[in-house]
Amino acid sequence: MKVYLAGPEVFLPNAREVLDRKIALTRRYGFTPISPGDLEVPATDTKRSKGLAISSINERLMLGSDMIIANLTPFRGVAADVGTAFELGFMCARGCPAYAFSNTVSDHFARVARHYDGQIRSDTENRPRGPDGLAVEDFDMVDNLMLDGGIEVRGGVIVTREVEAAGLFLDHQGFEECLRMAATRFLR
Amino acid sequence: MKVYLAGPEVFLPNAREVLDRKIALTRRYGFTPISPGDLEVPATDTKRSKGLAISSINERLMLGSDMIIANLTPFRGVAADVGTAFELGFMCARGCPAYAFSNTVSDHFARVARHYDGQIRSDTENRPRGPDGLAVEDFDMVDNLMLDGGIEVRGGVIVTREVEAAGLFLDHQGFEECLRMAATRFLR
Repeated sequence: MKVYLAGPEVFLPNAREVLDRKIALTRRYGFTPISPGDLEVPATDTKRSKGLAISSINERLMLGSDMIIANLTPFRGVAADVGTAFELGFMCARGCPAYAFSNTVSDHFARVARHYDGQIRSDTENRPRGPDGLAVEDFDMVDNLMLDGGIEVRGGVIVTREVEAAGLFLDHQGFEECLRMAATRFLR
Repeated sequence: MKVYLAGPEVFLPNAREVLDRKIALTRRYGFTPISPGDLEVPATDTKRSKGLAISSINERLMLGSDMIIANLTPFRGVAADVGTAFELGFMCARGCPAYAFSNTVSDHFARVARHYDGQIRSDTENRPRGPDGLAVEDFDMVDNLMLDGGIEVRGGVIVTREVEAAGLFLDHQGFEECLRMAATRFLR
């Protein structure tokens, strides 16, 4: 069973080392790891065509995968990396089981409330809103409801742990917990 | 041809009015609009089960759609709304044409550079990185390469326009340009 390893680890200074560790862990639990960066990017003329080539490689890797484990740890702000969210949606549409982890226990509502410095008010329909009028999802969810919902409806789980800032994208305990649950479900 | 209207407009104080305007525009160009909020959410016991019910409705609406037009205007930070990114990936995996618009001309690289207060340095492989060491995608793209790539490879376009802050989620010219291009491609 091939598992696509989605997450913003590709942006780390030591991306290769971190991805290799995730790859090794995935094998240890009996799965075949499929990781962005597995294929070499062909030479291209422009920045944009290089980006398109990488997108195309990642789509191909996903089409050859049976499951996704996504790192939904907030990335440069209140929410998960949008590339990872795209990939999660992509694999959900293919009917693949999806698991995820986030290295913070602060949920979507708490993070957005902090983004607004706590200035959340309920509107006349009792819906919480920020000072800019935008509604704040309040569904006891890790991130936007499409992400949590897509995972749960396919039998998956989002593992959350509180990890100190320095290890935010390096700590693999949540990832490993996903592997453990998926192995129990699919490989026993 | 049914078009799924994805975007963070659902969070606006006047969401119903804004969605209705998008729905009317979509009809005017000859498409059948499919919009989140089209179906009533059943009564649920918990916040979480309500969120799951909405997710499930939106997935069902997407499964009944033939195309997506996504609002990728940056939402609460440097990137598109992650729910919209999930839906874009979902529709791309289904092989549906995808169009998008963003109401800023500031591209991904420019926005992330501003997020880092301009503190971007190239590493030894000439890859731009923020002060936190995270690589900054520099591919002349509107957002993360999976989003731009997923749209372009399916023949779509991301329309960008500079819209003043007050109209950021209310201006529909970019959206209408997507409808115009899609109508030329599919309805002539």
